[in-house]
Amino acid sequence: MSVTRRGFLTRVGQLGGYSATFATMQALGLLPMKAEEPAFVRAEQGSGKGVKLVVVGAGVGGLVTAYEAKKLGYDVTLLEAGTRPGGRVWTGRNGDVIEFEDGTKQTIEWTKGLYQNMGAGRLPSIHGTTLGYVREFNIPIEVEVNTSRQTLLQNDRVNGGKAYTQRKVINDTRGHVSELLSKTLMGGALDQDLTGEDKLKLYEMLQYYGPLDKTGKYKGSDRADIKQYPGAGPKEMIVNEDTIPLDTLLKANFLGYEMYEEAWDWQATMFQPVGGMDAIPMAFAKRLGPVLKLNAPVTAIAKTGKGVTVTYTQGGAEHHIEADYCVSAMPLTILRKIKADLDAPHRDAVEKANYRGSYKIPWEAPRFWEKEYNIYGGLSFLSQGVSPLWYPSGNLFSERGILVAGYQDESIGGLDKMTPEQVFAKSKLSVERLHPGHAKDLEKPVFMSWRRAKWFEGSWIGAQPAAEYDVMCQPDGPIYFAGDAMSHVVGWQEGALLSGIRALQMISDRVKG
Amino acid sequence: MSVTRRGFLTRVGQLGGYSATFATMQALGLLPMKAEEPAFVRAEQGSGKGVKLVVVGAGVGGLVTAYEAKKLGYDVTLLEAGTRPGGRVWTGRNGDVIEFEDGTKQTIEWTKGLYQNMGAGRLPSIHGTTLGYVREFNIPIEVEVNTSRQTLLQNDRVNGGKAYTQRKVINDTRGHVSELLSKTLMGGALDQDLTGEDKLKLYEMLQYYGPLDKTGKYKGSDRADIKQYPGAGPKEMIVNEDTIPLDTLLKANFLGYEMYEEAWDWQATMFQPVGGMDAIPMAFAKRLGPVLKLNAPVTAIAKTGKGVTVTYTQGGAEHHIEADYCVSAMPLTILRKIKADLDAPHRDAVEKANYRGSYKIPWEAPRFWEKEYNIYGGLSFLSQGVSPLWYPSGNLFSERGILVAGYQDESIGGLDKMTPEQVFAKSKLSVERLHPGHAKDLEKPVFMSWRRAKWFEGSWIGAQPAAEYDVMCQPDGPIYFAGDAMSHVVGWQEGALLSGIRALQMISDRVKG
Repeated sequence: MSVTRRGFLTRVGQLGGYSATFATMQALGLLPMKAEEPAFVRAEQGSGKGVKLVVVGAGVGGLVTAYEAKKLGYDVTLLEAGTRPGGRVWTGRNGDVIEFEDGTKQTIEWTKGLYQNMGAGRLPSIHGTTLGYVREFNIPIEVEVNTSRQTLLQNDRVNGGKAYTQRKVINDTRGHVSELLSKTLMGGALDQDLTGEDKLKLYEMLQYYGPLDKTGKYKGSDRADIKQYPGAGPKEMIVNEDTIPLDTLLKANFLGYEMYEEAWDWQATMFQPVGGMDAIPMAFAKRLGPVLKLNAPVTAIAKTGKGVTVTYTQGGAEHHIEADYCVSAMPLTILRKIKADLDAPHRDAVEKANYRGSYKIPWEAPRFWEKEYNIYGGLSFLSQGVSPLWYPSGNLFSERGILVAGYQDESIGGLDKMTPEQVFAKSKLSVERLHPGHAKDLEKPVFMSWRRAKWFEGSWIGAQPAAEYDVMCQPDGPIYFAGDAMSHVVGWQEGALLSGIRALQMISDRVKG
Repeated sequence: MSVTRRGFLTRVGQLGGYSATFATMQALGLLPMKAEEPAFVRAEQGSGKGVKLVVVGAGVGGLVTAYEAKKLGYDVTLLEAGTRPGGRVWTGRNGDVIEFEDGTKQTIEWTKGLYQNMGAGRLPSIHGTTLGYVREFNIPIEVEVNTSRQTLLQNDRVNGGKAYTQRKVINDTRGHVSELLSKTLMGGALDQDLTGEDKLKLYEMLQYYGPLDKTGKYKGSDRADIKQYPGAGPKEMIVNEDTIPLDTLLKANFLGYEMYEEAWDWQATMFQPVGGMDAIPMAFAKRLGPVLKLNAPVTAIAKTGKGVTVTYTQGGAEHHIEADYCVSAMPLTILRKIKADLDAPHRDAVEKANYRGSYKIPWEAPRFWEKEYNIYGGLSFLSQGVSPLWYPSGNLFSERGILVAGYQDESIGGLDKMTPEQVFAKSKLSVERLHPGHAKDLEKPVFMSWRRAKWFEGSWIGAQPAAEYDVMCQPDGPIYFAGDAMSHVVGWQEGALLSGIRALQMISDRVKG
C-alpha cells in the first residue's frame, strides 16, 4: 500500500545530487511535473575493479546493487537464501510453493497461464527508476487498471448492506458538496471572500462540477447512475435521480476508498509487466548470471578490520567470502536472526524494526466480475471483513482469472490468529457480499501471508523513529543496508531500487576517496 | 466525442424488450449498475429463409445487420462503395490512402507497425453490445488509457501560457471547493440544513476530501503537485504548496477538461483492440465472406411494390438486385446523393441531416511524451488552437508512436477553410505549446477529415429535431435505416450495432407477421 513516512519521520540534510538533472530541466520550464529521472550511480567505468563486494538478499534492492556493481567492475557475489530471486516481487503460478516460516507449505494449483503477483503488483508512472530498468531491460508492459468506476463500495451500515458503484459514490459526493457550496454562495456566506465576478463564475463552475440543476440542486447525473442506457430508435437514456443521501455518505465514510485513485503513487497511468511482475527481477538475474547464488542463506557477517567475512551455507556445506564491503539487502526481520557483527545503534534499530503483515488471498475463478458485473480491473472495498477485492488487469476477457479477495494487514480482523482455512472462509464471505452467488465459483485459494513467509516474516516496515531510520541509512563500517526499508518509498520497488543505488554510491565514493 | 441527444431530442414510446434480461437481473439485486446486456435479434433460427435482403454500407451498422441476418438464414448481400469494410471504424497504417471527396489523396507513410484508429478509438466498458461481439469474435483487447493524471491543461490566459498537469488542476479544484465549503460550514451557513453530528462529519470529510490542513485551509497535497519525490536515505517528499489560485482556475475554465473522465461513456475502464480498432469490422467481414461486396457503390434504391431493386456498379458494370427488403446503413450524407425512392418525410429528414466534421491529425514521432513528460495515454487540452493531444495507449514504452494533435470539429478555428498543410502548421503549434522543442520531432502527418472523406462527408450527425429522428428510425416501406445516426449513442460503434440489430428485428417481426 501507499506508505510514506512523511508525518512521523523527520530528516535533516540532503545527500544532494539525485535530482540535479531533474531540477535543471524543471528550471528551464521544460518539464511540468515530470517524474523523477532514473537514478544512477555517479562513478567511473571500471572504478570497482579489484574491490570485492558481497550483497545479501536478492530482492530488487540486492539485485540492483549487484547489477550496478558488476557494471562498474566490482567483484561481486549476490547471496540469496531462498530458491528464487525477486524477494517480495514474486509472481505465483501453477506448481509454485508458498512456504511459511513454521514449515507449512501451500502449492499453487491454478490452471496453466494464470498467475498472481503475490507482492509488488503495480508500477506507478512516476516511479522513474523502476521504469528506467523496465526500459533498459525491454520488459513488455501493459496498463494496470487501478481505477475502475464500475468497482464496488460496501458498508453493512448503509443501503441494507448492498454495494454501490464507485461511479455513484464519487459523483454523488461531489454533487452534494457542490450543492451545499452553491447554496451558501448564493446565501452570501462568501461575499467577503470573493469578488462579484468570481462569485458568479464559481456558481457557474459548480453547476458543471456537481452537476447541479438550474435551481442549484444535485439530482444525480449520467456520471453517477444510469437507469436505462441509451440505445437505438426510441430508447433514450434515463438517469437514476435517486442519489445517495448526504447523511448516508457521511455514515458510510467511503472517502478513503473513493479518493485512493488520487494518491500520488496510485494515480493513472499505472503499469504491470505482461505475464507477471517477476519479469523485473528475472531480467536482473539473467544479467547477473553466476554472480547470483540461490539457496545460499547467510549465517554470519563479521567485520575483519580490512572488510568483512560473510558466511553462508549451500549444498550442506559452509562457505566463507572475504570481501571489502557487504550490502545487507535482507528484510531487517531476517538480518535480526543471523549472527551479524553490528554496532549497538544498528543492532538496536534492526531489533526494533516493526514489520507489517500485508497479505493477499488469490482465488482462481471464472471471470464473473467481468461478464456479470462489468468490472475490468480496479478494487472493490468493504468496510468490514476481508477487503478489498482486487480484480486482474491482465488477460482481460479471457475465461478464468485470479481474483484477490483480501489485501490488507493480517492484524485487521484477527487474521493473524487464523489458519489459512479460516482465512479462506472469511475471504469467501466478502466475495459473496459483493457478488452474491459467486463464492461457489472460487477455487484453489492460497494465503500469501508475508508475515508468515519463510525468509520474509513481514511485508514492509511500519512506523519507525527517525533516529532509527537515520542509523540504518548509514553504513556500519564496511556493512551497508539496502531495501525499501531504507527509503521513503516503503513497500515499492522504487524504494528498494533507490536504496540499492544509494548504498552503492556510498561505497563507490569511499572506494574513490 | 461523447454525444447523446438528451436535452434536444424528446422521444415517446418504447420498443420494449431490449433490456428485459438486464432488468430482471437488476430486480433480483444481482447486478448493481451493470452495463447493458448484449442486444440480440429475437427471432427463430432459419426464420430468414427465402427472404432476400440487401444491406447498403459496410460500416459496423451494416456489418452487424448482414451478419445477424445471415445467421437467421436470410439471403443477404452487403454492398460497400469503398475499398474496405468498417466505415468510420478504420485503422490507418503504412500505405493506406485517405481519399477526399474532391479527389485529394494522402498516403500514410508511417514506420511499419505503427497505426492510428482514424475514427472509433475507444470501447467503453458499459457498451455491452460492442463488447458482446468482441467476446463472440475473441478479439484481443487491451486497456485504452483515457485518463492520465500526468496529461496537461493549458490556457494562454493563465500561468503565462504554461500548462498545468491534470493532476494539479483536478486536485486544486477540489481543494478550493472543500476549503470554501468548510469555511461556510463552520461559519454556520448550513446550520439549518444539517444536524450538529452531520455538520461535524462533513467537516471531517472535507478535511480528507480537500485535503485541508487543521485550520481548514487547502495548501496543496501530494495528490496535486510534488516538488521533490521521496527517495532513499534522507530524501523525503516535498509537496509543492503553491496551489493554482481559485481565481486562476475560474479564469482558465478547465472544468470541461478536468471532468471528461466522468462522462458516462468515457469512464475507466476503457478498451481498444490490440493492433487497431479495425479488428472488429474485419471479424464481421471474415464471417460474411462473399456476402460482402467491396467497391460496389449503390446508385439507386427503388421500391417495386413487392420489395426493392438495388442498383450498384462494380468493375465498370451496372448490377441490379431484386430483394424483399433493403437496409440503408450509409451515412445520410451519402444516401442523400443517390437515387433513392424515399417518401417525403424520409427524403426531408435525409436532406436536412446536419453532419459534424470531427477530424484527427496523427503524426509519427519518437515518444517524447513518455520519455520526457511521463505521459502514457490520455488527453491534453489547450483552450485555444488545435486541441486536444491524444497520446497512444498501445505499444507503450516503444520507440516511436502516433500522436494525434487535434481531434475536434473542423468548424472550430476555421480549419474547414484550410488546406491540409495549413492544418498541419496549426497542429504543430499546439504540440510546441505543450511540449516545447518537440514540434520538430513530428513527421508524416495526415489530415483525417471525415467531412472531406470520400463516402463519408461527415463524422456523425449533429443536433436534429425529434420528428426527423423519429422518421428515420421507422422504415419507409421495404427500406430500413441503420447506423449510429438512428440511435441515441451517436458517434459510437454501440449505436451503430444497436441500430442494425433493431432494423433487423423490425424486418424479422414483419417477416414473421
